Amino acid sequence: MNSVHIDLGERSYFIKVASCGLRASVDDPLLPAGTAALIVSNETIAPLYGELLLSALAKHYPQVHTVILPDGEQHKTWQTLNLIFDALLTHGCDRKVVLYALGGGVVGDMTGFAAACYMRGVDFVQVPTTLLAQVDSSVGGKTGINHPLGKNMVGAFHQPRLVICDLSTLDTLPARELAAGLAEVIKYGPIADMALFDWLEANMDALLAREPQALAHAVRRSCEIKAAVVGADEREAGLRAILNFGHTFGHAIEAGMGYGVWLHGEGVAAGMVMAAELSRRLGLVDEGFVQRLRTLLMRAGLPTRGPVLDAQDNAGRYLELMRVDKKAEAGEIRFVLIDGPGRAVLRAAPDALVREVIDACCAG
Amino acid sequence: MNSVHIDLGERSYFIKVASCGLRASVDDPLLPAGTAALIVSNETIAPLYGELLLSALAKHYPQVHTVILPDGEQHKTWQTLNLIFDALLTHGCDRKVVLYALGGGVVGDMTGFAAACYMRGVDFVQVPTTLLAQVDSSVGGKTGINHPLGKNMVGAFHQPRLVICDLSTLDTLPARELAAGLAEVIKYGPIADMALFDWLEANMDALLAREPQALAHAVRRSCEIKAAVVGADEREAGLRAILNFGHTFGHAIEAGMGYGVWLHGEGVAAGMVMAAELSRRLGLVDEGFVQRLRTLLMRAGLPTRGPVLDAQDNAGRYLELMRVDKKAEAGEIRFVLIDGPGRAVLRAAPDALVREVIDACCAG
Repeated sequence: MNSVHIDLGERSYFIKVASCGLRASVDDPLLPAGTAALIVSNETIAPLYGELLLSALAKHYPQVHTVILPDGEQHKTWQTLNLIFDALLTHGCDRKVVLYALGGGVVGDMTGFAAACYMRGVDFVQVPTTLLAQVDSSVGGKTGINHPLGKNMVGAFHQPRLVICDLSTLDTLPARELAAGLAEVIKYGPIADMALFDWLEANMDALLAREPQALAHAVRRSCEIKAAVVGADEREAGLRAILNFGHTFGHAIEAGMGYGVWLHGEGVAAGMVMAAELSRRLGLVDEGFVQRLRTLLMRAGLPTRGPVLDAQDNAGRYLELMRVDKKAEAGEIRFVLIDGPGRAVLRAAPDALVREVIDACCAG
Repeated sequence: MNSVHIDLGERSYFIKVASCGLRASVDDPLLPAGTAALIVSNETIAPLYGELLLSALAKHYPQVHTVILPDGEQHKTWQTLNLIFDALLTHGCDRKVVLYALGGGVVGDMTGFAAACYMRGVDFVQVPTTLLAQVDSSVGGKTGINHPLGKNMVGAFHQPRLVICDLSTLDTLPARELAAGLAEVIKYGPIADMALFDWLEANMDALLAREPQALAHAVRRSCEIKAAVVGADEREAGLRAILNFGHTFGHAIEAGMGYGVWLHGEGVAAGMVMAAELSRRLGLVDEGFVQRLRTLLMRAGLPTRGPVLDAQDNAGRYLELMRVDKKAEAGEIRFVLIDGPGRAVLRAAPDALVREVIDACCAG
């Protein structure tokens, strides 16, 4: 068992990485006190782990309620969020309720946002059951929902009180989602830690075979890097933006295809290749680096080419979608680029060059 | 012209109290910089002051957009809030947009909540055009929307960057809404400043005649008191709750009658009499104090008796509604009581005594 500490002053918290089974790993003296707990899960995860979590929490709270959301990125909406508020108010939950997010990134983002807004803020705990959520979305306090015109456009910064990553929950994860999670693990290499990248090249087969020790290292190291970045820049004033390597192109892919068609990690994978290729054309990295990244992503089973979003003007459609990205400012897109392996920078690039990259990196 | 400073560290801001007309009072070097401004108003206020604000802001921002919401507490919902997000995204507004709330408390609460959530937080400025908003809701950073099961149940603490109270906008305020605003002004006396209460007894006629000097004193002194309380307790851990004198009963009245039937200030007026009467029956104040409060509220044109919410069990209905109040904890209602004129305390009271007070203080 391992813990990673996120140092955010009075909003500090621990990420617990365990593989002893959900009931044992949740039963922890660090659970925040409360008058009641509300488990928020979805129709896929609740039947697998809902009862285990409920029985673990029943020892800690006078009341434990459950609300089950529909599964999928397309349900990350106001309508679904309101199901959480309906449950909280129907059960008469007060400000001392603790919300538990049991599921992947969508459940975590919505539960966190509901916790940020219910009575102007209550506690919540993340219990991520996907690799993507364990290494990325459950850590850092970004919460929110999608808007038809953009992903995560409505949300809040609201830190969990505790994150419990139980690796045994990954046993039931579909292979495609495991791969999507690996995209975010791979991401931490180019932006911050090429030693992790080397390790991933050596251990990709063990990760795909879900060997607990390999998964534990990947999850813990990813959380450590994210913790360091978030600790230095909680509200994304600067440094934190490097965590979005591949995400500017990736968000355009997700939005352009319609949310849920490509998984988030798949869009990020193809987006990282584009961002690396843009870095190369700006003279920041060499072709060898781009090829290494491409190869590792392929071994993980991830796409390395973007989809064609518009048969007439594909690059134009990508640019249009990227201009509404939250990182854009006055219509100028700011890309996370690799300034030599292991170091990220945030900068703009000429439209013409971005068009060339999109043309070179999309299927067709 | 006068300013009140709200001291909240890096979230500090000024409340400007002016009577020089909206265009002149808004044109101020303190306006936050931004790539665009979005004026959020409603269908009643926009025709009166929308153009004045637009022309003042056009000098400060490259782009100024407007979104007009339906008017009324019953529209303080997700659906209406989404009109603001739709406008922001349709106009391609980035994180450097500044929202301007032009209207009363409903517009201010929704604009502030939209600013709290849009791209996880952007700047906003309050331009309150009702007395209630000038003396209460625009100050302190509470934002939110209603849920069918409770008022302001979903929201955020998000401080404005500036509050501009132009008294000339009160010229168009209906008399009933002026009175509702006076309820919150009167509130500051019993909880914090009996000298203000004395002044209100001496100047109620001038306030009802909308004399600018009297209004300026009432607005500035109210904001000063609120600023001191909010500065000591931004997130309502303790002291800040005293600002809710009369609100526990008042919220039950609003919810029980259906939002919008009684104005917020009207519910608070009747609620203050109930809370004062409860204080008296607990031996904290004498009958003379309760009578002084009742008389001043009546002079302001405010109700001093609560409505009957349930013909069978009126007190039971009040209690049921008060138990879902945000200040309740594990079903225990915490009342703001007057512990001698000018000093508030937060405490529970026996149900039987609360029932007696409700029976004694309701019409019928």
